[in-house]
Amino acid sequence: MPYVYAFDHRHKRPPMELKDRLGGKGANLAEMTSVLKLPVPPGYTITTDACRDYMRSGWPPGLSEEIDRHTGRLEKLMKRRLGDPDDPLLVSVRSGAKFSMPGMMDTVLNLGLNDRSVKGLARATSDERFAYDSYRRFIAMYARIVLGLDGELFDDELERAKRNEGVSSDAELSAEALKDLCTIYKKLVKEETGRAFPQDPQRQLRGAIEAVFRSWDSPRARAYRERERIPHDLGTAVNVQVMVFGNRDDRSGTGVGFTRNAATGEDKPYGDFLINAQGEDVVAGIRNTLDLDELGKHFPGVKDELLGIFARLEAHFRDMCDTEFTIEQGKLWMLQTRIGKRTGRAALKMAVDMTNQRRRGWKISREEALLRITEEHLEQVLHPQFASDDVEVIATGLAASPGAASGRVYFTADDAVAAADRGEQVILVRNETSPEDVHGMQVAQGILTARGGLVSHAAVVARGWGIPAVVGAEAIRIEGRSFTVGDVRVDEGDVISIDGTTGRVVLGEVDLVMGDPPPELETILSWADAVRHGKNRRRAHMGVRANADTPEDAARARELGAEGIGLCRTEHMFFGEDRLPVVRQLILSDDPAEEAAALEKLLSLQRADFVEILEVMDGLPVTVRLLDPPLHEFLPSVEELEVRRATGSLSPEEERMLAAARAWSEQNPMLGTRGVRLGVLKPGLYAMQVRALVEAALERAKAGGRPVVEIMIPLTVSREELAEARRWASEAIGEALKGSRRKLDISIGTMIETPRAALRAGEIAEVADFFSFGTNDLTQMTYGFSRDDVEGRLMPTYLERGLLRRNPFDTIDTDGVGELVALGVERGRRVKRSLKVGVCGEHGGDPESIAFFQRVGLDYVSCSPFRVPVARLAAAQAIVRATAAA
Amino acid sequence: MPYVYAFDHRHKRPPMELKDRLGGKGANLAEMTSVLKLPVPPGYTITTDACRDYMRSGWPPGLSEEIDRHTGRLEKLMKRRLGDPDDPLLVSVRSGAKFSMPGMMDTVLNLGLNDRSVKGLARATSDERFAYDSYRRFIAMYARIVLGLDGELFDDELERAKRNEGVSSDAELSAEALKDLCTIYKKLVKEETGRAFPQDPQRQLRGAIEAVFRSWDSPRARAYRERERIPHDLGTAVNVQVMVFGNRDDRSGTGVGFTRNAATGEDKPYGDFLINAQGEDVVAGIRNTLDLDELGKHFPGVKDELLGIFARLEAHFRDMCDTEFTIEQGKLWMLQTRIGKRTGRAALKMAVDMTNQRRRGWKISREEALLRITEEHLEQVLHPQFASDDVEVIATGLAASPGAASGRVYFTADDAVAAADRGEQVILVRNETSPEDVHGMQVAQGILTARGGLVSHAAVVARGWGIPAVVGAEAIRIEGRSFTVGDVRVDEGDVISIDGTTGRVVLGEVDLVMGDPPPELETILSWADAVRHGKNRRRAHMGVRANADTPEDAARARELGAEGIGLCRTEHMFFGEDRLPVVRQLILSDDPAEEAAALEKLLSLQRADFVEILEVMDGLPVTVRLLDPPLHEFLPSVEELEVRRATGSLSPEEERMLAAARAWSEQNPMLGTRGVRLGVLKPGLYAMQVRALVEAALERAKAGGRPVVEIMIPLTVSREELAEARRWASEAIGEALKGSRRKLDISIGTMIETPRAALRAGEIAEVADFFSFGTNDLTQMTYGFSRDDVEGRLMPTYLERGLLRRNPFDTIDTDGVGELVALGVERGRRVKRSLKVGVCGEHGGDPESIAFFQRVGLDYVSCSPFRVPVARLAAAQAIVRATAAA
Repeated sequence: MPYVYAFDHRHKRPPMELKDRLGGKGANLAEMTSVLKLPVPPGYTITTDACRDYMRSGWPPGLSEEIDRHTGRLEKLMKRRLGDPDDPLLVSVRSGAKFSMPGMMDTVLNLGLNDRSVKGLARATSDERFAYDSYRRFIAMYARIVLGLDGELFDDELERAKRNEGVSSDAELSAEALKDLCTIYKKLVKEETGRAFPQDPQRQLRGAIEAVFRSWDSPRARAYRERERIPHDLGTAVNVQVMVFGNRDDRSGTGVGFTRNAATGEDKPYGDFLINAQGEDVVAGIRNTLDLDELGKHFPGVKDELLGIFARLEAHFRDMCDTEFTIEQGKLWMLQTRIGKRTGRAALKMAVDMTNQRRRGWKISREEALLRITEEHLEQVLHPQFASDDVEVIATGLAASPGAASGRVYFTADDAVAAADRGEQVILVRNETSPEDVHGMQVAQGILTARGGLVSHAAVVARGWGIPAVVGAEAIRIEGRSFTVGDVRVDEGDVISIDGTTGRVVLGEVDLVMGDPPPELETILSWADAVRHGKNRRRAHMGVRANADTPEDAARARELGAEGIGLCRTEHMFFGEDRLPVVRQLILSDDPAEEAAALEKLLSLQRADFVEILEVMDGLPVTVRLLDPPLHEFLPSVEELEVRRATGSLSPEEERMLAAARAWSEQNPMLGTRGVRLGVLKPGLYAMQVRALVEAALERAKAGGRPVVEIMIPLTVSREELAEARRWASEAIGEALKGSRRKLDISIGTMIETPRAALRAGEIAEVADFFSFGTNDLTQMTYGFSRDDVEGRLMPTYLERGLLRRNPFDTIDTDGVGELVALGVERGRRVKRSLKVGVCGEHGGDPESIAFFQRVGLDYVSCSPFRVPVARLAAAQAIVRATAAA
Repeated sequence: MPYVYAFDHRHKRPPMELKDRLGGKGANLAEMTSVLKLPVPPGYTITTDACRDYMRSGWPPGLSEEIDRHTGRLEKLMKRRLGDPDDPLLVSVRSGAKFSMPGMMDTVLNLGLNDRSVKGLARATSDERFAYDSYRRFIAMYARIVLGLDGELFDDELERAKRNEGVSSDAELSAEALKDLCTIYKKLVKEETGRAFPQDPQRQLRGAIEAVFRSWDSPRARAYRERERIPHDLGTAVNVQVMVFGNRDDRSGTGVGFTRNAATGEDKPYGDFLINAQGEDVVAGIRNTLDLDELGKHFPGVKDELLGIFARLEAHFRDMCDTEFTIEQGKLWMLQTRIGKRTGRAALKMAVDMTNQRRRGWKISREEALLRITEEHLEQVLHPQFASDDVEVIATGLAASPGAASGRVYFTADDAVAAADRGEQVILVRNETSPEDVHGMQVAQGILTARGGLVSHAAVVARGWGIPAVVGAEAIRIEGRSFTVGDVRVDEGDVISIDGTTGRVVLGEVDLVMGDPPPELETILSWADAVRHGKNRRRAHMGVRANADTPEDAARARELGAEGIGLCRTEHMFFGEDRLPVVRQLILSDDPAEEAAALEKLLSLQRADFVEILEVMDGLPVTVRLLDPPLHEFLPSVEELEVRRATGSLSPEEERMLAAARAWSEQNPMLGTRGVRLGVLKPGLYAMQVRALVEAALERAKAGGRPVVEIMIPLTVSREELAEARRWASEAIGEALKGSRRKLDISIGTMIETPRAALRAGEIAEVADFFSFGTNDLTQMTYGFSRDDVEGRLMPTYLERGLLRRNPFDTIDTDGVGELVALGVERGRRVKRSLKVGVCGEHGGDPESIAFFQRVGLDYVSCSPFRVPVARLAAAQAIVRATAAA
């Protein structure tokens, strides 16, 4: 396979489909040149293969010859030569990876200039000023990108030259001044590198190509890819293209154009341009740009040509395109195009518009429209965001709950409540939160913690309530009523802003944007639901439920389109102020009568909770998980009590509490006495919960409701265990229904969250009506990763070093954990065809994971209420993609 | 299928092979009756199917009819009828499960007697005394077993009768007294149960059969089966057999005979008998029995007949047999036979003798000989045991390290050392042990702890050193220099005995037995080795290595036949008194220079350790696992430091330690920063260890040795991780070998101990030379069982309720964890055929697990040094069985 292709090469497949090798920019340049025959300066693309080979074992043999051949072809075509002292050919060298990485990778313009050819350029263009302006730009750019020098050195000299001539803009500098600058720049290069600036254009070219290759592995590029989940082993392509000059004269210019409005989605071209400038000037924002509307005024004819091209591009790519163009002495050149990035609002509007447009000669299907909306688009319209990214970030933590917020800092829940009562906007800042902080969390606009991972209390509660949160911002040191981060000190009452979508913490107030979601949101989600409920294919169905523990959560979930509750955690009900003492009484009691009394009290409290939830979810399934966490979570910590005992004394009650906390404390609670194991040790507990639930359902049914109850046993490892739990549950159901002749819709199933349960899913299915994969715990056990422990310290290191391609708690590890899920589904269904199978781990709200769950045949996903719209869309997208692939 | 078979039924297959249905006793009675034609009282067997059906859904339909038909046949054969008032037929009703459960199950003798038939019996035998003796025995036995009354009620009356008549033995009681006893016994039954003693023999029979069925589910039977790992769902057969009477007169008697000496293995029949007695009298030990040698004196002719039968039984069963016989008025009857239980010493001698014997007409193969030795047999000859089981057990804990010991109790390591210096035998008693106690453990005869499981520090260290240990004896309360258990108080210096094979703790000294292992041990083990190294079949090879961390352990392991070290844990070297401060320095340092200095110090210490180990194991592979445990294990506990800070103050050094302990403490250390994850965070650590190891190997090679080094990376989850670790290791090897031209035998591999590693074994094999399954951790993660936490509280409950068939930490869970092992082996070898695969978890020393590992194709097992002989034998047995099955 060749390493190099000309833009006008006739590929066997459309170049768009060759982005793996040509990169995005190269593929689209080929598309514009060879298919659309647009005015594109000629050039060639060096493939990503060459980059990968280079990274593996240095400059690939044979590559130089190919480059020389293609450069020769350019020279013949343009009838000019690189470095020619009379009329030199100049080229640009640009990176172009498969996925766009804006601003991350390097570009060298005006390559081919040297001390002799710059004179040729001056002569050929009869414009000495232009020639030396191009040369000084080239030297500075090459020095920075290829030779690794600090760009400020050159900027300083440019500023000095302007001061000397008493001018304020680059364009006002005289030719002499620019000539001097070239001399000064070359001296700088010599001083800093010890070697003269290279005069040989072939050497320049090789240097620039290598620099682009190397820039793939730069720390900022790696960091970007990690954030964007782009694999590190793709490599970049390199595009070498004949230069055209927007800075040639005042009949020249350069600009950026969108075929529609990328911010609003309005169907009207949009863009900026500059007269007498090169592309970098537009991006750098040094000069004030002009609006595309004004293009006709300055370049008659060009505007119409450009709009015509925009229409052809849209029709060809069937989407909004983002272009760069240059006008050289009145002639329009297209330098690149790509599918344009857009805001969430714009994405929704464009997707809906493009299915409806009648005037145009093309439109897209609803399925295509669905595929054009991303998770981020939805987040943007569902949560407030920073209006601009131009903010001073003082710390970064884990993006625990999306959305942005500004407010005054308070350090205790009580202070937060008092401030909220005074009408203040509050950001609650704590080392970590506990159930005792929830009243403060409830009133806060945002939550920031210094410790904890994405399943910490703060993160889980904030997501559940849709409050923006940043957790585990470890740089923050809280002391009393202030925190410091580096040199910055933030006192109680100071204003900060947090962005829970990205993890940023910002000093002061930041403008937020959101407004009401655009009307197209409902349209898109209704199309998604139609796809998810497609009647023709059983496996194409995919339900979306929510994880909700309270009536409020359940109501919110239903409003956002949840089709049931996939996980109702009963322990959260145990943490309530009125319940904790009763729960403790239950744990401490060694007297059956006392235990029974405590259970009876909890029974009536839980029943009331369940009645409300079943009412909100009337007619939809509600999966209630019986108590899961280790009992010591309901007690004060041993350490706290020990310290208090050592310094003062404990009441007899507290002594009893300490003994219980000791007895129930565990070295590895994650792998200890929790879930169904608790049920085995305290069978009365589970029986009480089932009774409360069934009595609640009965009450609802009597009131004319249609409760649909699914009882879920956590942490099962074997058939025997689930069979025993099923026996208790059935007995409790029998007891609750005694004397009633109503038939209730009740099923009994289990979480599949240990590797063994997945492996033994066949036998477990014999005694289960449904499975729900608990992929959080399954991931923890499959990797041996305690999320609380590894997410702060280890995970960043692992991601950075490429030891993990992504955080398996964010996106399911399809290779390992996923194999267990697939096995579990297959083995379970082989024994029981009718087995209902869902997932209720955090992965249930992650689009890529949802696509995997769709592939392995899950019936539904369940996620936090605020993720429901994302999950509805992602599930539909997965079905569309799977159907297309089939 | 019939529920009932007569003893003389002609089965299509040898009855021996029908133990599943006939039970052991029934099968052997059929064997003796229908095949060997020995004098066996006629009878029939009710199959285990009947018992299982009974337990499931009550008395099986049709069973009564079958019993009636067979009873009728017995009546016809004997020309007597059950309950006949003139000359009644009497029968015994005995349990007989597939596996012998001595003393666990119930028996009823003399069934068929009632108020009328007892008179017939008296008339027919002209012996009223005999008739009423039989009747009172029957009533008491029936009352106890079928009606559930307390046996002591009847014993008390018997004693009272003897006192009344002024006699000392049962046999001296007059007929009148016995007649009265019958009346008193019946009255007792009436009083206690409210119903008269049943007179109808059919009702008696049905009652006795049901009682035997029910006895299968008695708590003690269940407990026995759990200990012996007999499944609970087998059920028992029931044998109904015509009674013969050893208590008929003085020409009658009863006895127990072994065809060889069950204690020593000597090839000479051995046994006891009683004149004028029933079987229960021999077992009960009420009367002094006579030696079998004297049988000829009392019963001329019978002795020769019995010895002839013994020879035929041995030839038929090809093994030592244990028999029960009765002589009725001079005629010999065989009541049952089975393969006899034997001591370890006897088992070894018999197995070897039986392969060599020339005089006999039969012998066994070496393979058969191997299969006759059990794990317990080896334990008995390798470790001291209590000489008798007649001991007063004050507490029971987990059997952590086999063998028994007596000694004086000391509560601190220092006190133990001082006592040992004075020449005392010491039992070290602690709540739990830590690395700071090892000097005391080293000098102790035995170790007893109140807390901790089978992988606690005490258990692991004791097993490694072969010191008997009982751990987690939770009934023990230690206060200062004494402990109490219930009412018993044991002070420092008091003598106790412990049995680490069974977990018993006994007050006072107990005689121990062991002596030198018999010479046959070496013979058997050499045969086992020959089988393990069989040249003809690759998969028949199975190596046995040891887990050893010190030169002493390694030497012991080699002596016991280990063929290498499968696991050398380097962390144990870090706990040494001279090392701990350096390790702490390493953890505390945030200065690279300080860190480097600490590493350099550790390097020279570790190198010296490795040199010694490689010397001891010269020519054999030594697998060294790089540092595995979480770093906080090397620091004092947060709690301890917190309490000290709260009550006094900490030095700056200690404050630093507290900060570090906090920073490194984890919520679930099992799933936290350990193993290769430590290596990722502190790469210098692993590099240091590899350098120390390779430098040691180099030193050994220079000295003319042949070191074989295997570097093992713990806790891998992915190919990327192992590839990175391999890079560090390779670099360190390169550095260590710089300047040397020696070729060393070094390979690099990994533990497979996370579920993900097993699933991804294919990709991991690409960068591994070997795998070693860490089945301890793999079991913990597959089940989600933290061994420290669940083994004390949960596991006993789970076993008792049948939620687990056995403790998966003792014997590998073939269904779940085993599937991962099998998958890992298969996927690893598919990628790399030459991949060496072993196991180094505790399962490596468990015979059943070894059989599984043989089946899935492991190359070796590795276990603690003292388990090596057991593993050598078990591996050979697995191969013999697999070869036979193939």
